[in-house]
Amino acid sequence: MWDGGEIVQAQLLKVDNEEAYDPYDSVLVKMKEPMNPNAFIAALRASISQWRQKGKKCVWIELPINLSNLVHPAVEQGFRYHHAESDYLVLVNWIPRDIPSIIPANASHTVGIGAFVVNNERKVVLVVLEKSGEFRGSGLWKFPTGSVDEGEDLCAAAIREVQEETGIDTEFGEILAFRQAHKSFFTKTDLFFVCMLIPKSFNIKTQEMEIEAAKWMPIEDYAEQTFVKENQQYNLIAKICIERLNEQTIGFTPEAVTRKSGGMTNFVYYLKSRV
Amino acid sequence: MWDGGEIVQAQLLKVDNEEAYDPYDSVLVKMKEPMNPNAFIAALRASISQWRQKGKKCVWIELPINLSNLVHPAVEQGFRYHHAESDYLVLVNWIPRDIPSIIPANASHTVGIGAFVVNNERKVVLVVLEKSGEFRGSGLWKFPTGSVDEGEDLCAAAIREVQEETGIDTEFGEILAFRQAHKSFFTKTDLFFVCMLIPKSFNIKTQEMEIEAAKWMPIEDYAEQTFVKENQQYNLIAKICIERLNEQTIGFTPEAVTRKSGGMTNFVYYLKSRV
Repeated sequence: MWDGGEIVQAQLLKVDNEEAYDPYDSVLVKMKEPMNPNAFIAALRASISQWRQKGKKCVWIELPINLSNLVHPAVEQGFRYHHAESDYLVLVNWIPRDIPSIIPANASHTVGIGAFVVNNERKVVLVVLEKSGEFRGSGLWKFPTGSVDEGEDLCAAAIREVQEETGIDTEFGEILAFRQAHKSFFTKTDLFFVCMLIPKSFNIKTQEMEIEAAKWMPIEDYAEQTFVKENQQYNLIAKICIERLNEQTIGFTPEAVTRKSGGMTNFVYYLKSRV
Repeated sequence: MWDGGEIVQAQLLKVDNEEAYDPYDSVLVKMKEPMNPNAFIAALRASISQWRQKGKKCVWIELPINLSNLVHPAVEQGFRYHHAESDYLVLVNWIPRDIPSIIPANASHTVGIGAFVVNNERKVVLVVLEKSGEFRGSGLWKFPTGSVDEGEDLCAAAIREVQEETGIDTEFGEILAFRQAHKSFFTKTDLFFVCMLIPKSFNIKTQEMEIEAAKWMPIEDYAEQTFVKENQQYNLIAKICIERLNEQTIGFTPEAVTRKSGGMTNFVYYLKSRV
């Protein structure tokens, strides 16, 4: 019964993209401006009611970190976390009660590269002593390594890391191997790609913040280091690299393919030339 | 000056792991019990002051979703988001003002597999019609595909997906190719591994929720489908699979390696046998 109180006509949340992720009939709300939590709750309820009528199945809300006061209200309205980066959090709500949720998984893997930069004529490989991380102070000469950023091609990441750490320009060669490791950081899984690169310059200029020293080292000396010999993974990767130099093995090379839907180029890596 | 008010002796937050991620001299706080936001702020301030004195550089707080009311207070105390899963959020704070932050990146990639399950004698491949997703209703017969979960080996994921979607038991063979694609979902990057598997059973039993139909199809008929011919990526992958059957190419096979630090086994994938 109408009790004479004030009618609150909730505004609707502004939708940025009604087809953010097509197969899910979804709505994406990118919150930008501060909003009173009560007004946010009212708008959220009114909006979801309308989206449900329109047959939408999934609602995403992206909240920048300066709107962290809206996280708790969204959770109270039934939203769950989906993923977060340093400065924003994405929450999601699956609307239909009679259809099982098919919300796609969050990113599950970190991805890194190790660069086998080799001068095949002289059989020397580019190695570094790291200033930080688990090998700090260990005396271990290792391949330059680094993370592949979101949106970055593996082959580009390898070239970039070598340039940053040692100043050496390279051309991408092959992916000789990769390893998958679990629980590398919190519960995430790590993929690490061993990339062979061909040096185009030889004068080393180390990055002072991360790298203690860098040099060209005979590949056998690299493989003979105690840690490399005693660690199964390092030992196997050294063996694969040496076998590649002896032409007993070969790696995957990248081939660019264009997506039908647009100009974006992906790389497919596979064995193109035979041993 | 002491004004006679109540002295609030803040409790310290309970630390679960002072060496959560060694190279970062970090503290991990896993919040489990509800806490008044003001008490949480007081405890957080007192704790950080103590950790700073102990030389800790990095503080992680894991907040389950039922404690979402503590997100905003943590952000107000200078914490940033690091990552989130459905039911928890991890925040992080880099303490030293004079040392640049080396907080590790969040997971950046989703990882999937496509299963090339082939009976080489009969040159038939296992294909499915999907009920949902972008190919729903398109009539496209495609390889079984699926996501690799956190903590799951690629080779195990391929076997699992084929079993789930078609009921076929398989043995892992090789990784024939992989492709990296950007902005597959929000800003994340996707890695997709084409796995060759050897069937150990032949009677198909489809999963009703995701799969409309499944069958064994001559590989040439698969490759002749209009979509496969016209999409560069599908076309290239079909070509790589056919070349594998003709023994013109070969893939990477997994080899288990044990981490020195413990019993955990990782897989390294590389070209073991020559073409």
